[in-house]
Amino acid sequence: MKVLIDLCLVPLGVGVSLSPYIAACQKVLADSGLKSELHSYGTSIEGEWDAVFAAVKRCHEVVHEMGAPRITTTIKAGTRTDREQSMEDKVRSVKEKL
Amino acid sequence: MKVLIDLCLVPLGVGVSLSPYIAACQKVLADSGLKSELHSYGTSIEGEWDAVFAAVKRCHEVVHEMGAPRITTTIKAGTRTDREQSMEDKVRSVKEKL
Amino acid sequence: MKVLIDLCLVPLGVGVSLSPYIAACQKVLADSGLKSELHSYGTSIEGEWDAVFAAVKRCHEVVHEMGAPRITTTIKAGTRTDREQSMEDKVRSVKEKL
Amino acid sequence: MKVLIDLCLVPLGVGVSLSPYIAACQKVLADSGLKSELHSYGTSIEGEWDAVFAAVKRCHEVVHEMGAPRITTTIKAGTRTDREQSMEDKVRSVKEKL
Repeated sequence: MKVLIDLCLVPLGVGVSLSPYIAACQKVLADSGLKSELHSYGTSIEGEWDAVFAAVKRCHEVVHEMGAPRITTTIKAGTRTDREQSMEDKVRSVKEKL
Repeated sequence: MKVLIDLCLVPLGVGVSLSPYIAACQKVLADSGLKSELHSYGTSIEGEWDAVFAAVKRCHEVVHEMGAPRITTTIKAGTRTDREQSMEDKVRSVKEKL
Repeated sequence: MKVLIDLCLVPLGVGVSLSPYIAACQKVLADSGLKSELHSYGTSIEGEWDAVFAAVKRCHEVVHEMGAPRITTTIKAGTRTDREQSMEDKVRSVKEKL
Repeated sequence: MKVLIDLCLVPLGVGVSLSPYIAACQKVLADSGLKSELHSYGTSIEGEWDAVFAAVKRCHEVVHEMGAPRITTTIKAGTRTDREQSMEDKVRSVKEKL
Protein backbone atom coordinates (compact mmCIF):
# COMPACT_ATOMS: atom_id res chain seq x y z
CA MET A 1 0.00 0.00 0.00
CA LYS A 2 1.51 3.29 -1.16
CA VAL A 3 0.98 6.38 0.96
CA LEU A 4 1.60 10.09 0.57
CA ILE A 5 2.01 11.94 3.86
CA ASP A 6 2.54 15.45 5.08
CA LEU A 7 4.75 15.37 8.20
CA CYS A 8 5.09 18.23 10.67
CA LEU A 9 7.17 17.30 13.72
CA VAL A 10 7.40 19.81 16.58
CA PRO A 11 9.92 19.28 19.40
CA LEU A 12 8.86 20.78 22.75
CA GLY A 13 11.04 21.92 25.61
CA VAL A 14 13.89 23.07 23.37
CA GLY A 15 13.08 26.75 22.90
CA VAL A 16 11.63 28.43 19.82
CA SER A 17 14.27 27.55 17.24
CA LEU A 18 13.22 24.25 15.73
CA SER A 19 15.22 24.21 12.49
CA PRO A 20 18.13 22.06 13.79
CA TYR A 21 15.59 19.32 14.62
CA ILE A 22 13.81 19.65 11.29
CA ALA A 23 17.18 19.48 9.51
CA ALA A 24 17.96 16.24 11.39
CA CYS A 25 14.64 14.82 10.14
CA GLN A 26 15.54 15.80 6.58
CA LYS A 27 18.71 13.71 6.99
CA VAL A 28 16.64 10.76 8.26
CA LEU A 29 14.43 11.09 5.19
CA ALA A 30 17.40 11.36 2.82
CA ASP A 31 18.92 8.22 4.39
CA SER A 32 15.61 6.40 4.00
CA GLY A 33 15.73 6.79 0.23
CA LEU A 34 12.10 7.95 0.22
CA LYS A 35 11.01 10.76 -2.06
CA SER A 36 10.36 13.83 0.09
CA GLU A 37 9.99 17.56 -0.25
CA LEU A 38 10.25 20.22 2.44
CA HIS A 39 7.72 23.08 2.41
CA SER A 40 7.11 25.91 4.84
CA TYR A 41 4.85 24.00 7.27
CA GLY A 42 5.94 20.39 6.85
CA THR A 43 7.46 17.80 4.53
CA SER A 44 5.71 15.70 1.89
CA ILE A 45 6.87 12.07 1.82
CA GLU A 46 5.89 9.36 -0.65
CA GLY A 47 6.43 5.60 -0.56
CA GLU A 48 5.32 2.25 0.78
CA TRP A 49 3.35 2.55 4.03
CA ASP A 50 5.82 0.61 6.21
CA ALA A 51 8.88 2.46 4.91
CA VAL A 52 7.22 5.86 5.33
CA PHE A 53 6.06 5.22 8.89
CA ALA A 54 9.42 3.67 9.83
CA ALA A 55 11.00 6.97 8.76
CA VAL A 56 8.50 8.94 10.86
CA LYS A 57 9.35 6.78 13.90
CA ARG A 58 13.08 7.25 13.24
CA CYS A 59 12.54 11.04 13.18
CA HIS A 60 10.94 10.87 16.65
CA GLU A 61 13.84 8.73 17.95
CA VAL A 62 16.51 11.04 16.49
CA VAL A 63 14.86 14.21 17.82
CA HIS A 64 14.57 12.68 21.30
CA GLU A 65 18.26 11.64 21.08
CA MET A 66 19.11 15.28 20.27
CA GLY A 67 17.64 16.20 23.64
CA ALA A 68 13.99 17.07 23.01
CA PRO A 69 12.01 15.64 25.94
CA ARG A 70 8.66 15.90 24.17
CA ILE A 71 7.44 15.88 20.57
CA THR A 72 4.06 16.58 19.02
CA THR A 73 3.65 15.68 15.36
CA THR A 74 0.86 16.29 12.87
CA ILE A 75 0.55 13.89 9.94
CA LYS A 76 -1.82 13.86 6.99
CA ALA A 77 -1.80 10.49 5.21
CA GLY A 78 -3.48 9.64 1.92
CA THR A 79 -3.96 6.22 0.34
CA ARG A 80 -5.95 5.24 -2.74
CA THR A 81 -6.75 1.98 -4.48
CA ASP A 82 -8.28 3.39 -7.67
CA ARG A 83 -5.01 4.58 -9.22
CA GLU A 84 -1.45 5.64 -8.48
CA GLN A 85 -0.88 9.34 -7.88
CA SER A 86 2.46 10.96 -7.09
CA MET A 87 3.11 14.23 -5.27
CA GLU A 88 3.68 15.93 -8.62
CA ASP A 89 0.47 14.46 -10.09
CA LYS A 90 -1.56 16.05 -7.28
CA VAL A 91 -0.14 19.53 -7.82
CA ARG A 92 -0.35 19.23 -11.63
CA SER A 93 -3.96 18.11 -11.44
CA VAL A 94 -4.91 21.33 -9.60
CA LYS A 95 -2.75 23.63 -11.75
CA GLU A 96 -4.30 22.31 -14.98
CA LYS A 97 -7.65 23.62 -13.74
CA LEU A 98 -6.46 27.16 -13.04
CA MET B 1 8.50 4.19 22.76
CA LYS B 2 4.97 4.94 23.93
CA VAL B 3 2.80 7.21 21.83
CA LEU B 4 -0.56 8.92 22.25
CA ILE B 5 -2.28 9.70 18.98
CA ASP B 6 -5.44 11.38 17.76
CA LEU B 7 -6.70 9.58 14.64
CA CYS B 8 -9.21 11.03 12.19
CA LEU B 9 -9.70 8.82 9.13
CA VAL B 10 -11.87 10.15 6.29
CA PRO B 11 -12.96 7.83 3.44
CA LEU B 12 -13.54 9.59 0.11
CA GLY B 13 -15.77 8.55 -2.76
CA VAL B 14 -18.38 6.92 -0.51
CA GLY B 15 -20.84 9.76 -0.01
CA VAL B 16 -21.33 11.90 3.08
CA SER B 17 -22.17 9.24 5.66
CA LEU B 18 -18.90 8.12 7.13
CA SER B 19 -20.04 6.46 10.37
CA PRO B 20 -20.05 2.85 9.04
CA TYR B 21 -16.35 3.24 8.22
CA ILE B 22 -15.54 4.87 11.54
CA ALA B 23 -17.40 2.05 13.31
CA ALA B 24 -15.27 -0.49 11.40
CA CYS B 25 -12.15 1.32 12.64
CA GLN B 26 -13.46 1.16 16.22
CA LYS B 27 -13.66 -2.62 15.79
CA VAL B 28 -10.06 -2.72 14.51
CA LEU B 29 -9.01 -0.76 17.59
CA ALA B 30 -11.00 -3.00 19.94
CA ASP B 31 -9.38 -6.08 18.36
CA SER B 32 -5.93 -4.51 18.75
CA GLY B 33 -6.31 -4.40 22.52
CA LEU B 34 -5.08 -0.79 22.55
CA LYS B 35 -6.69 1.74 24.85
CA SER B 36 -8.77 4.10 22.71
CA GLU B 37 -11.55 6.63 23.08
CA LEU B 38 -13.85 8.02 20.41
CA HIS B 39 -14.63 11.74 20.47
CA SER B 40 -16.56 13.94 18.06
CA TYR B 41 -13.68 14.63 15.63
CA GLY B 42 -11.43 11.61 16.02
CA THR B 43 -10.24 8.83 18.31
CA SER B 44 -7.51 8.97 20.95
CA ILE B 45 -5.28 5.87 20.99
CA GLU B 46 -2.51 5.04 23.45
CA GLY B 47 0.18 2.35 23.33
CA GLU B 48 3.54 1.25 21.99
CA TRP B 49 4.45 3.05 18.74
CA ASP B 50 4.54 -0.08 16.54
CA ALA B 51 1.23 -1.44 17.82
CA VAL B 52 -0.51 1.91 17.44
CA PHE B 53 0.67 2.50 13.88
CA ALA B 54 -0.07 -1.13 12.92
CA ALA B 55 -3.66 -0.44 14.01
CA VAL B 56 -3.77 2.76 11.92
CA LYS B 57 -2.55 0.81 8.87
CA ARG B 58 -5.15 -1.91 9.52
CA CYS B 59 -7.87 0.79 9.61
CA HIS B 60 -6.79 1.98 6.14
CA GLU B 61 -6.81 -1.61 4.82
CA VAL B 62 -10.25 -2.38 6.28
CA VAL B 63 -11.81 0.83 4.99
CA HIS B 64 -10.42 0.18 1.50
CA GLU B 65 -11.78 -3.41 1.69
CA MET B 66 -15.21 -1.94 2.52
CA GLY B 67 -15.09 -0.17 -0.84
CA ALA B 68 -13.61 3.26 -0.19
CA PRO B 69 -11.28 4.02 -3.12
CA ARG B 70 -9.51 6.86 -1.34
CA ILE B 71 -8.74 7.81 2.26
CA THR B 72 -7.28 10.93 3.83
CA THR B 73 -6.31 10.70 7.48
CA THR B 74 -5.14 13.28 9.98
CA ILE B 75 -3.01 12.08 12.91
CA LYS B 76 -1.56 13.96 15.85
CA ALA B 77 1.13 11.92 17.61
CA GLY B 78 2.83 12.73 20.90
CA THR B 79 5.87 11.08 22.47
CA ARG B 80 7.85 12.08 25.55
CA THR B 81 10.95 10.77 27.27
CA ASP B 82 10.74 12.81 30.47
CA ARG B 83 7.84 10.88 32.01
CA GLU B 84 4.87 8.66 31.28
CA GLN B 85 1.57 10.40 30.70
CA SER B 86 -1.72 8.70 29.91
CA MET B 87 -4.76 10.14 28.11
CA GLU B 88 -6.44 10.67 31.47
CA ASP B 89 -3.35 12.36 32.93
CA LYS B 90 -3.42 14.95 30.15
CA VAL B 91 -7.06 15.86 30.70
CA ARG B 92 -6.68 15.85 34.51
CA SER B 93 -3.63 18.09 34.32
CA VAL B 94 -5.66 20.78 32.50
CA LYS B 95 -8.80 20.40 34.66
CA GLU B 96 -6.80 20.83 37.89
CA LYS B 97 -5.85 24.31 36.68
CA LEU B 98 -9.42 25.48 36.01
CA MET C 1 -22.50 28.61 8.61
CA LYS C 2 -22.11 26.27 11.57
CA VAL C 3 -18.79 24.59 12.13
CA LEU C 4 -17.47 21.86 14.39
CA ILE C 5 -13.75 22.08 15.06
CA ASP C 6 -11.07 20.16 16.88
CA LEU C 7 -8.52 22.61 18.31
CA CYS C 8 -5.04 21.65 19.49
CA LEU C 9 -2.93 24.68 20.44
CA VAL C 10 0.74 24.12 21.30
CA PRO C 11 2.79 26.95 22.85
CA LEU C 12 6.52 26.77 22.06
CA GLY C 13 9.42 28.16 24.03
CA VAL C 14 7.76 27.63 27.41
CA GLY C 15 9.11 24.21 28.38
CA VAL C 16 7.28 20.90 28.34
CA SER C 17 4.38 21.65 30.68
CA LEU C 18 1.61 23.02 28.53
CA SER C 19 -1.42 22.55 30.77
CA PRO C 20 -1.48 26.13 32.20
CA TYR C 21 -1.83 27.43 28.63
CA ILE C 22 -4.49 24.89 27.71
CA ALA C 23 -6.38 25.79 30.89
CA ALA C 24 -6.28 29.47 29.85
CA CYS C 25 -7.79 28.48 26.49
CA GLN C 26 -10.55 26.58 28.27
CA LYS C 27 -11.41 29.82 30.08
CA VAL C 28 -11.49 31.70 26.75
CA LEU C 29 -13.88 29.06 25.43
CA ALA C 30 -16.07 29.18 28.55
CA ASP C 31 -16.25 32.99 28.26
CA SER C 32 -17.19 32.68 24.57
CA GLY C 33 -20.35 30.78 25.45
CA LEU C 34 -19.55 28.20 22.76
CA LYS C 35 -20.18 24.53 23.41
CA SER C 36 -16.82 22.82 23.85
CA GLU C 37 -15.36 19.63 25.22
CA LEU C 38 -11.78 18.89 26.19
CA HIS C 39 -10.30 15.53 25.24
CA SER C 40 -6.79 14.11 25.57
CA TYR C 41 -5.37 15.62 22.35
CA GLY C 42 -7.48 18.72 21.79
CA THR C 43 -10.84 20.38 22.34
CA SER C 44 -14.02 20.01 20.28
CA ILE C 45 -15.84 23.32 19.72
CA GLU C 46 -19.20 23.85 18.04
CA GLY C 47 -20.91 27.05 16.85
CA GLU C 48 -21.19 29.70 14.17
CA TRP C 49 -18.02 29.98 12.06
CA ASP C 50 -17.18 33.58 13.05
CA ALA C 51 -17.69 33.00 16.77
CA VAL C 52 -15.64 29.80 16.74
CA PHE C 53 -12.69 31.32 14.88
CA ALA C 54 -12.83 34.49 17.00
CA ALA C 55 -12.37 32.21 20.02
CA VAL C 56 -9.42 30.47 18.37
CA LYS C 57 -7.80 33.85 17.68
CA ARG C 58 -8.44 34.92 21.28
CA CYS C 59 -6.70 31.74 22.49
CA HIS C 60 -3.59 32.66 20.47
CA GLU C 61 -3.66 36.22 21.88
CA VAL C 62 -4.07 35.04 25.48
CA VAL C 63 -1.31 32.42 25.22
CA HIS C 64 1.08 35.01 23.74
CA GLU C 65 0.13 37.43 26.57
CA MET C 66 1.03 34.67 29.05
CA GLY C 67 4.55 34.76 27.62
CA ALA C 68 4.67 32.13 24.89
CA PRO C 69 6.74 33.59 22.05
CA ARG C 70 5.54 31.07 19.49
CA ILE C 71 2.44 28.93 18.97
CA THR C 72 1.65 26.14 16.53
CA THR C 73 -1.97 25.03 16.35
CA THR C 74 -3.67 22.17 14.54
CA ILE C 75 -7.35 22.58 13.67
CA LYS C 76 -9.78 20.20 12.02
CA ALA C 77 -12.92 22.02 10.83
CA GLY C 78 -16.09 20.45 9.49
CA THR C 79 -19.04 22.16 7.80
CA ARG C 80 -22.06 20.63 6.10
CA THR C 81 -25.05 22.00 4.22
CA ASP C 82 -27.10 18.81 4.00
CA ARG C 83 -28.16 18.72 7.65
CA GLU C 84 -27.29 19.87 11.16
CA GLN C 85 -25.10 17.57 13.19
CA SER C 86 -23.89 18.20 16.73
CA MET C 87 -20.81 16.79 18.46
CA GLU C 88 -23.04 14.27 20.24
CA ASP C 89 -24.75 13.27 16.98
CA LYS C 90 -21.41 12.35 15.44
CA VAL C 91 -20.39 10.11 18.32
CA ARG C 92 -23.87 8.55 18.60
CA SER C 93 -23.94 7.81 14.87
CA VAL C 94 -20.77 5.71 15.17
CA LYS C 95 -21.76 4.00 18.43
CA GLU C 96 -25.10 2.87 16.98
CA LYS C 97 -23.16 0.86 14.42
CA LEU C 98 -20.99 -1.00 16.92
CA MET D 1 -1.11 39.37 14.42
CA LYS D 2 0.55 37.68 11.43
CA VAL D 3 -0.10 34.00 10.84
CA LEU D 4 1.31 31.33 8.57
CA ILE D 5 -1.08 28.47 7.91
CA ASP D 6 -1.15 25.20 6.04
CA LEU D 7 -4.65 24.62 4.62
CA CYS D 8 -5.95 21.25 3.42
CA LEU D 9 -9.64 21.38 2.49
CA VAL D 10 -11.38 18.09 1.61
CA PRO D 11 -14.87 18.13 0.07
CA LEU D 12 -16.96 15.03 0.86
CA GLY D 13 -19.82 13.53 -1.12
CA VAL D 14 -18.39 14.58 -4.50
CA GLY D 15 -16.45 11.46 -5.49
CA VAL D 16 -12.69 10.97 -5.47
CA SER D 17 -11.59 13.74 -7.80
CA LEU D 18 -11.04 16.78 -5.63
CA SER D 19 -8.86 18.95 -7.87
CA PRO D 20 -11.72 21.14 -9.27
CA TYR D 21 -12.53 22.18 -5.69
CA ILE D 22 -8.90 22.79 -4.78
CA ALA D 23 -8.50 24.86 -7.95
CA ALA D 24 -11.52 26.97 -6.89
CA CYS D 25 -9.82 27.56 -3.52
CA GLN D 26 -6.64 28.66 -5.31
CA LYS D 27 -8.74 31.30 -7.09
CA VAL D 28 -10.20 32.46 -3.75
CA LEU D 29 -6.66 32.80 -2.44
CA ALA D 30 -5.46 34.64 -5.55
CA ASP D 31 -8.41 37.06 -5.23
CA SER D 32 -7.59 37.60 -1.56
CA GLY D 33 -4.18 39.02 -2.43
CA LEU D 34 -2.58 36.84 0.23
CA LYS D 35 0.74 35.17 -0.42
CA SER D 36 0.11 31.45 -0.88
CA GLU D 37 1.81 28.39 -2.27
CA LEU D 38 0.27 25.07 -3.28
CA HIS D 39 2.08 21.86 -2.34
CA SER D 40 1.12 18.22 -2.69
CA TYR D 41 -0.92 17.95 0.53
CA GLY D 42 -2.15 21.49 1.12
CA THR D 43 -1.48 25.18 0.59
CA SER D 44 0.71 27.49 2.66
CA ILE D 45 -0.86 30.93 3.25
CA GLU D 46 0.72 33.93 4.95
CA GLY D 47 -0.83 37.21 6.15
CA GLU D 48 -2.78 38.99 8.85
CA TRP D 49 -4.89 36.61 10.95
CA ASP D 50 -8.28 38.07 9.99
CA ALA D 51 -7.53 38.15 6.27
CA VAL D 52 -6.18 34.60 6.27
CA PHE D 53 -9.15 33.14 8.13
CA ALA D 54 -11.62 35.15 6.02
CA ALA D 55 -10.07 33.44 2.98
CA VAL D 56 -10.42 30.01 4.62
CA LYS D 57 -14.11 30.73 5.33
CA ARG D 58 -14.59 31.91 1.73
CA CYS D 59 -13.07 28.61 0.50
CA HIS D 60 -15.66 26.66 2.52
CA GLU D 61 -18.49 28.84 1.12
CA VAL D 62 -17.30 28.49 -2.48
CA VAL D 63 -16.84 24.71 -2.24
CA HIS D 64 -20.33 24.32 -0.75
CA GLU D 65 -21.72 26.54 -3.57
CA MET D 66 -20.05 24.18 -6.07
CA GLY D 67 -22.21 21.40 -4.66
CA ALA D 68 -20.16 19.73 -1.95
CA PRO D 69 -22.56 18.93 0.91
CA ARG D 70 -19.82 18.35 3.46
CA ILE D 71 -16.25 19.57 3.98
CA THR D 72 -13.52 18.54 6.39
CA THR D 73 -10.48 20.78 6.58
CA THR D 74 -7.16 20.43 8.37
CA ILE D 75 -5.30 23.63 9.26
CA LYS D 76 -1.93 24.16 10.91
CA ALA D 77 -1.53 27.75 12.11
CA GLY D 78 1.63 29.35 13.46
CA THR D 79 2.03 32.72 15.17
CA ARG D 80 5.05 34.24 16.87
CA THR D 81 5.73 37.44 18.77
CA ASP D 82 9.52 37.19 18.98
CA ARG D 83 10.20 38.01 15.32
CA GLU D 84 8.76 38.03 11.82
CA GLN D 85 9.29 34.89 9.77
CA SER D 86 8.07 34.34 6.23
CA MET D 87 7.36 31.04 4.47
CA GLU D 88 10.71 31.33 2.69
CA ASP D 89 12.54 32.09 5.94
CA LYS D 90 11.29 28.85 7.47
CA VAL D 91 12.48 26.71 4.57
CA ARG D 92 15.81 28.58 4.29
CA SER D 93 16.44 28.18 8.02
CA VAL D 94 16.24 24.39 7.69
CA LYS D 95 18.20 24.17 4.42
CA GLU D 96 21.10 26.19 5.87
CA LYS D 97 21.57 23.42 8.43
CA LEU D 98 21.79 20.58 5.90
